[in-house]
Amino acid sequence: MDLNGYLEERLNALHENGNYRVFADLERKAGQFPRAHRHRSDGQVEDVTVWCSNDYLGMGQHEKVTSVMTEVIAKCGAGAGGTRNISGTNHYHVLLEHELADLHAKEAALIFTSGYVSNWAALGTLASQVPGMIVYSDALNHASMIEGIRHARCEKRIFKHNDPADLARLMAADDPRAPKMVAFESVYSMDGDIAPIADICDVADRFNAITYLDEVHAVGMYGPRGGGVAEREGLMDRVTIIEGTLGKAFGVMGGYITGSKTIVDFVRSFASGFIFTTALPPALAAGAATSIRHLKESTSEREAHKAAVAKVRAALDRRGIPHMPNPSHIVPVMVGDAKKCKWISDILLDNYGIYVQPINYPTVPVGTERLRITPTPFHTDSDIDHLACALCDLWYQCALARAVA
Amino acid sequence: MDLNGYLEERLNALHENGNYRVFADLERKAGQFPRAHRHRSDGQVEDVTVWCSNDYLGMGQHEKVTSVMTEVIAKCGAGAGGTRNISGTNHYHVLLEHELADLHAKEAALIFTSGYVSNWAALGTLASQVPGMIVYSDALNHASMIEGIRHARCEKRIFKHNDPADLARLMAADDPRAPKMVAFESVYSMDGDIAPIADICDVADRFNAITYLDEVHAVGMYGPRGGGVAEREGLMDRVTIIEGTLGKAFGVMGGYITGSKTIVDFVRSFASGFIFTTALPPALAAGAATSIRHLKESTSEREAHKAAVAKVRAALDRRGIPHMPNPSHIVPVMVGDAKKCKWISDILLDNYGIYVQPINYPTVPVGTERLRITPTPFHTDSDIDHLACALCDLWYQCALARAVA
Repeated sequence: MDLNGYLEERLNALHENGNYRVFADLERKAGQFPRAHRHRSDGQVEDVTVWCSNDYLGMGQHEKVTSVMTEVIAKCGAGAGGTRNISGTNHYHVLLEHELADLHAKEAALIFTSGYVSNWAALGTLASQVPGMIVYSDALNHASMIEGIRHARCEKRIFKHNDPADLARLMAADDPRAPKMVAFESVYSMDGDIAPIADICDVADRFNAITYLDEVHAVGMYGPRGGGVAEREGLMDRVTIIEGTLGKAFGVMGGYITGSKTIVDFVRSFASGFIFTTALPPALAAGAATSIRHLKESTSEREAHKAAVAKVRAALDRRGIPHMPNPSHIVPVMVGDAKKCKWISDILLDNYGIYVQPINYPTVPVGTERLRITPTPFHTDSDIDHLACALCDLWYQCALARAVA
Repeated sequence: MDLNGYLEERLNALHENGNYRVFADLERKAGQFPRAHRHRSDGQVEDVTVWCSNDYLGMGQHEKVTSVMTEVIAKCGAGAGGTRNISGTNHYHVLLEHELADLHAKEAALIFTSGYVSNWAALGTLASQVPGMIVYSDALNHASMIEGIRHARCEKRIFKHNDPADLARLMAADDPRAPKMVAFESVYSMDGDIAPIADICDVADRFNAITYLDEVHAVGMYGPRGGGVAEREGLMDRVTIIEGTLGKAFGVMGGYITGSKTIVDFVRSFASGFIFTTALPPALAAGAATSIRHLKESTSEREAHKAAVAKVRAALDRRGIPHMPNPSHIVPVMVGDAKKCKWISDILLDNYGIYVQPINYPTVPVGTERLRITPTPFHTDSDIDHLACALCDLWYQCALARAVA
């Protein structure tokens, strides 16, 4: 077999259908977020405004966060030097885990190198180690959850997206004695819709199932202390395991789970993806803990962020640019064609200094290609106008459908 | 089913057989490595000397590394703010990938959030996406490689550890037209033995297989520029994919693969564990690139490290403390019993200020429990004497067998 030829053929297919990914080579500018330098392939550098960052609140440039990271690098050095078990646990990991348990009002927390790994490792471990476990997984769960469940090779059922009735129907058909876990997200990142957490917990309770809630797009963002949608709705105690990330609203990197002491200790003790990997650098743990602590007390970032989202939606509406309505902070501007989506994104970048990555398959289904716009408290009114005008121009040039007022 | 009761029962079993892991709560001290603070459970803090760090060369405290990280935090902020595709690629990632491709004399490199993820994602993607791929895996491969291969659900064969003849026997029995990949490590972390890379490549060539070599315990450490064992032996061009870590000798965090442009682009384009995860913070990428660049030019760290390893072995030999002979920098002191191993480690920590984590199942097979000692250039002669004397005391108290002179 001509392996190289086969790989090239697969890559060519991506080019042909517009799904080949070209990464924008950026240089973030602390203090000037969402402004960044963009290194072009010809070596030139130009200024862009980033409109698709998951650093939703700009905490990645918050002075408290960057200064504590600098201090801890001076104090503890660069890396952790080992796995958590073999010399890699640093006191800042321990403090961060306390901060996270407190954030979600749980007994314990466990940090992982990423949100992806936390989902993969925690779901994979619980579902593979508990004999007979059946996992009920929302149809639109993130790749990391799907991989974790797939890894477990357990019995699994896919319930219709955000549909507690379908979940109940599936659960009723299974052995009432089998251990069960419902895995779902609060904010779904690509459509920006939010799960009916209370209703899903009601069904789970009825069938004696534990619940696993991914709040990666919600922590720091919702709830009076940034505990996520479950906090906002007073439901944290009804969810068995809350999973989150340190790499979006908290502005740093890493993932975590929180839950009872026993469940967290179990994952800590049996998860390959936790045990056999180098721990997060102490400075990242310290930066994340500082960010969380700040967002527990300060609500101004969340308020300014909400205001920015409303302004972006209003500016798009004024120009008839269709965006998917949803109750979250994510503004999906639908294009519906991979090549057009990439073309618009390229023109925005080259001619308008606006960076919004096209979201194509496999991140979203074919035919639902979009620009996923994430406003932040640091986008100014003139940034918003500039974005809406640019889209207006391109909608005209592309002959894309307008929303009807 | 009483889920909680079941989880507790499993945890109790770990306690009973001595395999329950208690993490030492450390605070690394940059500039004083391998000295660290240890936070005891009673709240007291005491000084310890770390003897089991994978920051093999102390690069985690190197002034060049920590100062560039501090600069880049000031310049770019804390996190990357997104996945590599969606606003998360920073110019420092691009520079780091150039540095890594150059290190291994390959066309391209791709960084991951960890070495675990690089193995899992790269092996998992190649073995699942190439139809009919058969993977030949060394019997002692790391958990991350095993999980990647398992993830692929491809045909797999386990060859006897470091045994090219067994590999050839297995390959000869398979369809000559099937695409094949041999996955192995250079330095095996727990026994410290080194693979016969040339012989394995010979067999792979004979059967038209590609090769995947994990050099995580070797990069920075071996070869004139720290390219690993394959560099030292002039074999880098014979290995298709070289995988490494930024979290051990390079002192920071993250993992990577290097190889042809096509293979790297293929993994970049199809690996779920690469695509759907937040990129490394720019400061980590900058720190790692600086560390690699330094170790390409400076050999003093490698020389001082070799000398320290030789001194430790000699000091143990003088006192009859049995350690596994091997051609690497890892000094496994065999205990062979989980509870005894943990007891020795506890006493070393509490009474001697020496921290060596016990290595028990599942990291090593039952009956081969050990103290895995990793000397560094920063351990002094008096540190080495203190370690050897302490082990001598405990060997006497534990009535453990001595090595025969």
